[in-house]
Order: sequence, then structure tokens, then C-alpha cells
Amino acid sequence: MARTAVTTRADAVALDAADPLAAFRDRFELGEGRRIYVDGNSLGALAHDAQAALEARIGEWGDRLVTGWHDWVDAPVTVGDRLAGAALGAGPGQVIVSDSTTVNLYKLAVAALDARPGAIVCDPADFPTDRYVLQGLSARMGRELRMLDTDPVAGPQPAEVERACAGGAALVVLSAVNYRSGSFARMAEITAAGHAAGALVLWDLCHAAGAVEVDLDAVGADLAVGCTYKYLNAGPGSPALLYVRSGLQAELRSPIWGWFSQADQFAMGPEYEPVEGIGRFLAGTPPIVALAAVDAGAAMLADAGLARVRAKAAALTSLAVDLHDQRLAPLGFTLGSPREPERRGAHVSLRHPDAWRICRALIDRADVIPDFRAPDSIRFGLAPLYTRYVDVWDAVDRLADIVESGEHEGSAATTARVT
Amino acid sequence: MARTAVTTRADAVALDAADPLAAFRDRFELGEGRRIYVDGNSLGALAHDAQAALEARIGEWGDRLVTGWHDWVDAPVTVGDRLAGAALGAGPGQVIVSDSTTVNLYKLAVAALDARPGAIVCDPADFPTDRYVLQGLSARMGRELRMLDTDPVAGPQPAEVERACAGGAALVVLSAVNYRSGSFARMAEITAAGHAAGALVLWDLCHAAGAVEVDLDAVGADLAVGCTYKYLNAGPGSPALLYVRSGLQAELRSPIWGWFSQADQFAMGPEYEPVEGIGRFLAGTPPIVALAAVDAGAAMLADAGLARVRAKAAALTSLAVDLHDQRLAPLGFTLGSPREPERRGAHVSLRHPDAWRICRALIDRADVIPDFRAPDSIRFGLAPLYTRYVDVWDAVDRLADIVESGEHEGSAATTARVT
Repeated sequence: MARTAVTTRADAVALDAADPLAAFRDRFELGEGRRIYVDGNSLGALAHDAQAALEARIGEWGDRLVTGWHDWVDAPVTVGDRLAGAALGAGPGQVIVSDSTTVNLYKLAVAALDARPGAIVCDPADFPTDRYVLQGLSARMGRELRMLDTDPVAGPQPAEVERACAGGAALVVLSAVNYRSGSFARMAEITAAGHAAGALVLWDLCHAAGAVEVDLDAVGADLAVGCTYKYLNAGPGSPALLYVRSGLQAELRSPIWGWFSQADQFAMGPEYEPVEGIGRFLAGTPPIVALAAVDAGAAMLADAGLARVRAKAAALTSLAVDLHDQRLAPLGFTLGSPREPERRGAHVSLRHPDAWRICRALIDRADVIPDFRAPDSIRFGLAPLYTRYVDVWDAVDRLADIVESGEHEGSAATTARVT
Repeated sequence: MARTAVTTRADAVALDAADPLAAFRDRFELGEGRRIYVDGNSLGALAHDAQAALEARIGEWGDRLVTGWHDWVDAPVTVGDRLAGAALGAGPGQVIVSDSTTVNLYKLAVAALDARPGAIVCDPADFPTDRYVLQGLSARMGRELRMLDTDPVAGPQPAEVERACAGGAALVVLSAVNYRSGSFARMAEITAAGHAAGALVLWDLCHAAGAVEVDLDAVGADLAVGCTYKYLNAGPGSPALLYVRSGLQAELRSPIWGWFSQADQFAMGPEYEPVEGIGRFLAGTPPIVALAAVDAGAAMLADAGLARVRAKAAALTSLAVDLHDQRLAPLGFTLGSPREPERRGAHVSLRHPDAWRICRALIDRADVIPDFRAPDSIRFGLAPLYTRYVDVWDAVDRLADIVESGEHEGSAATTARVT
């Protein structure tokens, strides 16, 4: 178990002074106030580059009008290629950016189930939309939905995937980083376990892209989806990524036969014939304005370098774990995340029976913005591009103060919607 | 056949002087140059309101970060309600804005086919994505796909829909305004014909919303989809609308079981249970930034008043038809749009055997931007909020000059992608 040597606030300040990514914080709109934002795992902050890219694209729309499509039409693929190289460990021609994670998961899951017989394997602790999409397909396509028996903190393990796939399976869908615990799955071993059972393996990268080294090509992943509004900082509801391994593209077909996936799109011919390559997984007209922010987010990540980003995520979460042990455990908290830094994404889960009221008090009285996940978790998302070590120190400090003083006991006990 | 009294450019200038919507043009980024934009049927122009709304939403993301979701989470429904009132003749709680037209069509068509036995009826002259989505569902769900026998200029007729539905049908999918001819369907009669056969009737409003009085509730429409980047001016690839008649919502279920359609979304419970109401047709996280522009577009349309917009669309297209007859017919053009103004949307189709080269020359040499649709159509989209009568005069004048002088004969003969 790695330990940081931080026992005072000055130690955290010293870590920031030595941080090779420290300058990236100034490229975000975070202000200089007291507020500490530790929810980049839910919605990434606004970077100046993203804002400028969006405004430039809006201006381009105004200036070029329909003639802009000459350059925009390939944006889902060119932005996908940039993202593939910057964050996903994927070679070109395998990623597009368009639609939502949910719609992309649906498209790929149907394509996979059309191509392979047998059951669907998923994790009952996975993010709701993944489970719901797969429940719907299980019912519609008459496929058994097998749930892993997963430790909620450790996340899915290769042996457990092997067990669930026994007798063969069509499709394994798992998150690379769990939305609640932040556990980072052993992607290579799990992918191999799925393949051994004849299954295609689909990774949800929502909480992983821009937080860990994903290496889709190296782990042999078949399919992946993921959002761009967390660690890629492309804005609320920005379009999602979709990955299909090159060697699999010709075999698979999206169930949504849209005109942007048509071979000779502007001939507008009578018969649908999907284009070769990753473009066959597009559907309707792609969100051109929003894609500008995804491109900016990928460029910024490429600039920072994924290895440095990953190292800082591990260091920030290690600091949070240490401070949990020092300050929070005595107050009734338990750690809801793995203790091994290499098995974590960029967020940690801090569990407490009174987590909802504590979370409200943190936001309302202490200017710390984390999020809450029912029933008992406060998530601290420590986005490596803009979170300082001292932010982790201060956020834990204020959290401990709230609980020590009982301030949270005045917060309303009802839960509300926090995305 | 209505005739405008325009025989000189001064007549067109006089029509602009009397136009109650004339002031709306200044609310768009169109510049004062020589360029004439007659392609609002493909991509609407940038309004200052839309630009301001997008920039404000981007700023809100930067300032409020994840706490912005408190207000954003209902945006697909609130923007849908505004659009419903401004442009669709639909009461509240029946429209959402999210995803693309293609994905929305897929969702609703599957829901309809799950709910009704029998064939799918569509128009072979309809926009490609509609035909392709339905081809895919015909193949997947084992439903006959019956094609109307439609006159390509007049568009689908009630009697022909009745014939195609003979013996019963599950679903009729038609465009309210045809993308090529601009024909405006007799929506009430066609909807009744579909209902008489037991079918649900789905209208594609892409070329109709903001161009004609659609009146979804009054015509008894069951379902509708449509884009917002044409006459609603929400930007390239902006999110699409989806309408489900109130009385039908409880019976239908989207095939894509996403978390934004879940009854108690943030409980993140184990079982999917769709929320009551139109929200059950949402899927993934909605595109919050882009929705700001749709809201601005709907507000501007409400401000202009749909009846005035509709009247101006009829008058502008009538002028284009008259000028076609005067100037273009002698040069080998034929009109590819209905001659009755009440049967047209806001664009006209001008057919010529050399249309591709003429279109190129218009753009490259005459600063007129229309679009081309294979094999022989130049479309003039006359968006009522910003197109002047004098623009129609000048655009036809330059078009006639190009053909008279043979200038287009130097343009490359190959077709290219124009969306």
C-alpha cells in the first residue's frame, strides 16, 4: 500500500510545486475563490480551449453556413482518431464520437448479440444505464443476462468473469473504472477470459477515459463506449465515443441504419449499404458544435500526456486515501475504493451512514463540491488536469470539520438529483 | 394558382418593405455582402439569440459546474414544450428534444411495431435516413415494408396511403414536407387513412417544423420526429425533436432503456422501469449546451408567430415559382415542387439536366448558396425569418444569368458531398 508523506497542508503545497501538470489548472475556468471542485468524475470543468473551440465552431457555422459541412462531415471520425491516440490506446479508424453513451452501447450490444450466440454477462454494480440497456436487450432478444458476483469495492475480477462465462457467452459488458468505487478493472485478463468463452468484450470507459491508461488495442478489447464530459471536459451531455476493433468492423452492423452510415451517403440511393470502416456505426447527423469541445479536450490530454495524467491520478487518490485514514476513519467513514493505486481511477468513494447530509453540508456550508451516490457514498473526483494536492487536503479538512462539528445535522435528510 | 405581382426587382423590394417579419433578418448573422443564402432548408443561419444562448450556457457550465444539472436535467422536456407550442401545434408534455432524428425515428418505430401488428408503409421518395431505418427494422422485425406509389412532385396522397394500408398496417411513416419537392402533405387526411387501417402514423417534420403550420394535435398524429437545424436554426447537428401523443405514451416503450428514461433516475436501482410521460423516450445524457440553441430558435419562432412565418413561406415560394416560369422555364428548367402554395413548405426544387454544374457555378461565381440533390434538382430554401423577397429575385436572376451565359459549363461534372 503506497503512502504519501503528507501530514501537513504544507506537504500538499510542496507536492503542487513539484507537479509537472500544475500549469494545466490555469487553462480552466475555475476561479480563485474558496470553492473546491472535486466532481470532475461527474462533469469536467470548462477549459479555455474548449470554450474557444466551441465559440470558433459557432462562428464558423455563422460564416460558412451549409458550406461548413465540407469540413464538418468527417468530424466524428477525425475527433475519434484524436481521442483514440490521446486517451484510449487505440490506433486510427476505430473510434467515432457521436450520440450518447447509452445509444452507442445499445448499437454495439445489438451488433454483438447478432454476431454471437449465448448470454450477456454484466456487473450488478455497474452504472445504471449499462444495466438497463442490457436488461432491455435481454428481454427483446431472448438472451440470458448473467450477473457477476462482484465485490463492490474491488470490482469485477478475471476469475469471476470466467465463472460467469462458463459454457459460453455472447457478450461481456463491464466498466473499466467503476462509477461508484473507482476500481480499475484488470482489462487484459478480463478481456482474455471473455474471449476464452467465445464472447465479445465491451468496455464502458465513462470513468476511465482521461483518468487511466486504457490501452484498448493492447488489451485486445473488441468494443468500447464512453462519455466525454468527465475527464475529457467536453461539457454537459457532450457526444460519446464508440470503439470497434478494426478486425471486427466488417462483421458487425449497427441496428440503426442511419444515413450517416450509408456507403455513398449523398447519392441517397434506394438501398441501405453500410460504409466500410468505423463510420458504419454512425446513425444520424452528428453534433458538430459539441464535437469541437471533444476535440479540444482530446488535444489538451495529448498535450499533458496520458502517462503523467495517470500518475497524478494515482498520487491524488493516494493522498485522499491517506487523509481518509488519518482524518475520516476516526469519524465513522470507511473507504469505498481500492487501496492499491494501480487499481483505482481518478476518484475515491468515502462511505458514511450519514453521507447525504454530510454531502449537502459540504456543498452549502464549506464550498466543496463532491457528489453523492445512494445510499452512503460521497465521491471525490480528482481530475488530474486541474485538481491540486492542496485541494485534496482542504476538501478532506473541511469534510472532517463538518462531521466533527455536527454541522451536517441541520441539512435536510431527503435526497435530491445530483448527476 | 396564386401569382405574385412581381415583374421587376423594385416590386420585390416593395414586398420586403411591407413584410411584417422584415426586422427578423437583422437578428441573424448574415452579413451585408453579396452572398445570398437560400439553403436554410439544409442548415439554418446563426441567430444572435442562438449564439448568445449557447455562450451563456457554456458560461453556466463553467460557473456552476455539476450543480448546473439542477436546472439542466429537465431541459429536453422544457425545450420540447416550448417547441411544441411555437412550431408543432402540440400541447405540453408530448415533445422532447434530444438525440438525432435518426435515433428518435428508430426508437419510435420500434415502439410502434411492438404495439401494432402488420406492415410498415413508407414513401420511396422520402429522405434516405427514414427509408434506411425502416428497411433495417423490416429486416430485423420481419415486417413487410410497403412503398407508396407517389408522384415525386405532389408527394403522398391520402388515397394512396389508404391503398397501401389495405388489409391493415402497423405503422405509416411519412414526411410532412418532402425534402426534395417541398410538397406539404395533407396531414389530417393521411393520418385518418392510416388510423382507419389500424396503423400508428409517424410524421417526419425535418423540413416542416418552422416552415408550415404542422398542428400535430389537431391532425391526430400519433408520433413525430424532426430536426432543429433547418428552420429552427439551432446549428449543425443540433438535437432532434420527438413527439408522442399523450394518450399513447403509456402504451409505448422505447427499445433503448437508458438511465434518463428511468422512473426514479437517481436511485439508480436494479430494475429498469420507465418514467411516466414523454420522458420515457429519452435515453442517455441529453446535450445540454446544444439545447440552449434549440430553445432560442423556438423562442424566436414564437415571437414571429407561426401563422406569419407560414404566410411568408407561401409568398416567398410563390415568388420563386413565378420567377421560375418567367426566367427559368425558357432555359430548360422544370419546377420540381407543387404549384399550389398551400401544398408547399418553404423550399422549391428547380430541375435541370445540368443541375450539378449550375449549382457549383452559382456558389463559386455568383455567391448564391442553394443546394443540389441528385440527380437534377437545385433546391432554394427560403427560410421565412431571414430571406427577403429581393433575395429570391436576385438568386433567380443570377441563376438565369449563369445558364444564359453558359458559365456553368466550366464547372467540374463530378458530384460532391453537400448536406
